[in-house]
Amino acid sequence: MKLGLIGLGKMGYNLTLNLLNHGHEVIVSDINPEPGRELEKLGAVAASGIAELTAQLARPRIVWVMVPAGAPVDSVVDTLAGLLDEGDIVIEGGNSHYKDSIARAEKLSARGIHFFDAGTSGGTEGAAQGACFMIGGNSEVFEAIEPLFRDLAVEKGYLYAGPSGSGHFLKMIHNGIEYGMMQAIAEGFELLEKSPYNFNYEDVARVWSNGSVIRGWLMELTESAFSKDPKLSGIRGVMQSSGEGKWTVQTALDLEASTPVIALSLLMRYRSLEENTFHGKVVAALRNEFGGHAVVKAE
Amino acid sequence: MKLGLIGLGKMGYNLTLNLLNHGHEVIVSDINPEPGRELEKLGAVAASGIAELTAQLARPRIVWVMVPAGAPVDSVVDTLAGLLDEGDIVIEGGNSHYKDSIARAEKLSARGIHFFDAGTSGGTEGAAQGACFMIGGNSEVFEAIEPLFRDLAVEKGYLYAGPSGSGHFLKMIHNGIEYGMMQAIAEGFELLEKSPYNFNYEDVARVWSNGSVIRGWLMELTESAFSKDPKLSGIRGVMQSSGEGKWTVQTALDLEASTPVIALSLLMRYRSLEENTFHGKVVAALRNEFGGHAVVKAE
Amino acid sequence: MKLGLIGLGKMGYNLTLNLLNHGHEVIVSDINPEPGRELEKLGAVAASGIAELTAQLARPRIVWVMVPAGAPVDSVVDTLAGLLDEGDIVIEGGNSHYKDSIARAEKLSARGIHFFDAGTSGGTEGAAQGACFMIGGNSEVFEAIEPLFRDLAVEKGYLYAGPSGSGHFLKMIHNGIEYGMMQAIAEGFELLEKSPYNFNYEDVARVWSNGSVIRGWLMELTESAFSKDPKLSGIRGVMQSSGEGKWTVQTALDLEASTPVIALSLLMRYRSLEENTFHGKVVAALRNEFGGHAVVKAE
Amino acid sequence: MKLGLIGLGKMGYNLTLNLLNHGHEVIVSDINPEPGRELEKLGAVAASGIAELTAQLARPRIVWVMVPAGAPVDSVVDTLAGLLDEGDIVIEGGNSHYKDSIARAEKLSARGIHFFDAGTSGGTEGAAQGACFMIGGNSEVFEAIEPLFRDLAVEKGYLYAGPSGSGHFLKMIHNGIEYGMMQAIAEGFELLEKSPYNFNYEDVARVWSNGSVIRGWLMELTESAFSKDPKLSGIRGVMQSSGEGKWTVQTALDLEASTPVIALSLLMRYRSLEENTFHGKVVAALRNEFGGHAVVKAE
Repeated sequence: MKLGLIGLGKMGYNLTLNLLNHGHEVIVSDINPEPGRELEKLGAVAASGIAELTAQLARPRIVWVMVPAGAPVDSVVDTLAGLLDEGDIVIEGGNSHYKDSIARAEKLSARGIHFFDAGTSGGTEGAAQGACFMIGGNSEVFEAIEPLFRDLAVEKGYLYAGPSGSGHFLKMIHNGIEYGMMQAIAEGFELLEKSPYNFNYEDVARVWSNGSVIRGWLMELTESAFSKDPKLSGIRGVMQSSGEGKWTVQTALDLEASTPVIALSLLMRYRSLEENTFHGKVVAALRNEFGGHAVVKAE
Repeated sequence: MKLGLIGLGKMGYNLTLNLLNHGHEVIVSDINPEPGRELEKLGAVAASGIAELTAQLARPRIVWVMVPAGAPVDSVVDTLAGLLDEGDIVIEGGNSHYKDSIARAEKLSARGIHFFDAGTSGGTEGAAQGACFMIGGNSEVFEAIEPLFRDLAVEKGYLYAGPSGSGHFLKMIHNGIEYGMMQAIAEGFELLEKSPYNFNYEDVARVWSNGSVIRGWLMELTESAFSKDPKLSGIRGVMQSSGEGKWTVQTALDLEASTPVIALSLLMRYRSLEENTFHGKVVAALRNEFGGHAVVKAE
Repeated sequence: MKLGLIGLGKMGYNLTLNLLNHGHEVIVSDINPEPGRELEKLGAVAASGIAELTAQLARPRIVWVMVPAGAPVDSVVDTLAGLLDEGDIVIEGGNSHYKDSIARAEKLSARGIHFFDAGTSGGTEGAAQGACFMIGGNSEVFEAIEPLFRDLAVEKGYLYAGPSGSGHFLKMIHNGIEYGMMQAIAEGFELLEKSPYNFNYEDVARVWSNGSVIRGWLMELTESAFSKDPKLSGIRGVMQSSGEGKWTVQTALDLEASTPVIALSLLMRYRSLEENTFHGKVVAALRNEFGGHAVVKAE
Repeated sequence: MKLGLIGLGKMGYNLTLNLLNHGHEVIVSDINPEPGRELEKLGAVAASGIAELTAQLARPRIVWVMVPAGAPVDSVVDTLAGLLDEGDIVIEGGNSHYKDSIARAEKLSARGIHFFDAGTSGGTEGAAQGACFMIGGNSEVFEAIEPLFRDLAVEKGYLYAGPSGSGHFLKMIHNGIEYGMMQAIAEGFELLEKSPYNFNYEDVARVWSNGSVIRGWLMELTESAFSKDPKLSGIRGVMQSSGEGKWTVQTALDLEASTPVIALSLLMRYRSLEENTFHGKVVAALRNEFGGHAVVKAE
């Protein structure tokens, strides 16, 4: 098939590689011309902008948008709204909030343009070699783009999930689960580190990756991480986050769902951003007030 | 190799199958004669008791103990202490507390008997077809029994972990991680269930099992569970536990390790054992006291 | 002073009593005429509507709004915007979201009307006999209404907190702390209930109310609740919530603040709304899948 | 009444002052002679050791033990067991584990000596001026010592709680609640600190201490702490703990009680002991592995 792909960051670049490897014709565009030039060597066609990109596609056009969530997606979708025609298809594969995807689908729908929210998992490696896709949008129109997902995904690795927003909703929840799983694994290794034993963590992650109940890709990545730095002594325990865990907890609050593990996984990430805490000062001061317990002085 | 195996529950029975399939000679024993009779048809030799079992082994004897943790293990190990000789080897493969394993190793060591604590993961299916083993005990003696683990485990699925107790310590932590992962997955599906969408959970678990970051055996089991009962409407949400999660949290307290996700996974299991709670009554009563908020009357 | 008071629910009614007891002239109004008629017997003047209420006040008029948060406040504030003049003052004493208060202050400010958000704590009893107020708005104009708060509050029980929104922000955080404190107390009594001892909870709450570190009004209310129903056997442990705890957790997410105790207090309230949970079913099903552990069948 | 008091640390010293102020005769003893000398000036009699202390008491002797929990209590109780006679009374007022108190009561009971476990709350100030006592032991013998508690406690501030261990059990739970309340208060102030407002925390704690739902001694102590250091800039947020919170959580695990708020209060204290965490490193490393997200390098 022939399609446009806007946004050549790590994910968009690797998806393009994956599409080219499967024989698709890809017109690419990015605000930075460099990745487009590289992809041209591999068979893509680099357009100098979105208008040039859409001009090279025949109706019904298919445009995959893979730019950062938020304003960049809005900007590209708005531009596409002015360039595309009735029956054309936009696939938005980024980490957008599902409510934004619903709003964008409605906006494009008013012009007869079909919008699909395609949550993508599997990391940069998966984007290139076979990822996992959760897709929301019109079920009948989906058949037109299903061949793309069949090629881009690992076997059984894509799902038409339901109406608009359902793809990104599933991706959000996927990431919430991911936060919980990562924190669970990390707490386990913290207990090993504080134990009286002297474990080799790469070995532990390897044995847990082979035949155990907790085997899976995250444990394999744990093995990989420890193979490079046996005690992770080169990095600090700062756990950043990029939004989807927060959205999951916000959604839990809205749905009145009790999700303590996902919530705590997020809150421990926030905690890790600080070396010192105000709540800690308050507790220490109170212990001093009522019991005369010593406090640790600030340096 | 030739060895004895005491305890033919689900795990011991399946391990015996696994051993027989790899050409080992297994003398089995259980308080219930039935599984031994079945295994005899498949090539095992059933002993009528522990003494008869050890009598059929040549020194250095190898005896694998696979009975329920706690008093049953103590009873079998004490019996073996009286029957085995210097240089003989006991492998304890159950879900014992690592401190109990250290104590048993010391007890047997006084008689020159070697003790290995072999944490076993992979479920009943893994026991039969290839499991994961974490083994603590004397590193030099381990070489004598390593061929057994090489056969019983999936490839790379066994680890000599360190001195006595380290095998069961690793298994305990493994289960703590497992609690956290299971709760994280379960919370994710609770959010799907409370969402405005109408997801097919088997499909969701399948797509997450293929190419996603959270793929792994637990997600495959989730797919399997939903394939049998799409909304799990046949079961109640009672989450029982068999001790290792509790031990992990107790260990975290002793090590002063902050493990909120594993702790909450356990506490939510306890919460699930009750339909009504006393803490809930107290909060409801307090809301009524200060704000006149209505309470839900007991039936 | 002379002022209007709109909204004669439990809180507004009791505040009016409190104002009358301190010699203020109060013009009251409510969509239900009954409480106004009762308050007329005690010295208030009941207006038949908001327009009639404002018509009875001299400029600069002072109107206290005490209606349910959300749409009712918006409705009353919008009506007042059309009736009041430059220099008039609106005090909004309900449990509004602080961002709504900021927006209302800006809206009224455009017409020269001053808006104060007055978070109110102390329950219905406090409203009548002396409450606690946290007030946001213009600091200079505050002096004009300070005498009201001096009369309505217990000694030292009011605070000019800062610009618009700061009053309701403080009240929101107050309620978040309250959620945590209530859950902490409730968990303590749950441990007593599950202990091998046979405590008299009213006695326990009384002794903890007298001289202990955890003494305070919530413990006194606990004593009161147990004095009426020694085991709280008449009520179910359903912990409802009215929004401010949720707002506190949402705010924590926005501020990237790690507030596990307040978050869990809220999540346990949500948990209490269900007798059975979907996450519990998933965990139970998974235990069955990998370990063959029995599940509890649905009835 | 005449009694002995062993242990003149902050609590024991202040209790002696309190006893002297109520006209009791107190024979005191401590391993450090200094506080005994000071108390002699105020009317106490300082004994040079435990034997000399018991020798100055007439049967039935009453000895209050106020030494650090654990080995010191064991040592003193064992010494007393050899010096006291049938019918004598030991009151142990420290922060002992309730199971230790049960064991000590049984040990002394074998010699006919009565043992009371008296959980004490109210801080050092309370010890001197009126504290809160929760007392376990023989109910009939309690009458003999009740006048002491009537004098030492604030009004209604003592409770005969039940058989041996019940006093220290109640004190343990009291401290568990205290951990939760303190963390709740502290989280609230952390939200204020991270908010866009510029609150004066002493003012906030004062207004919350007067008329609000969350008023109580801990809030008054919060006010006091902020009055001395408005932003607590002189101290670090290190939250130490002295055992009773940990015991409460261990008890919750044994009773299968879901106490997330108390548990998290403890876990956040452990978290505060570290500037960097191993679990944080693992999560950061995993994010880097699957998504190429940057890590913060160790310095």
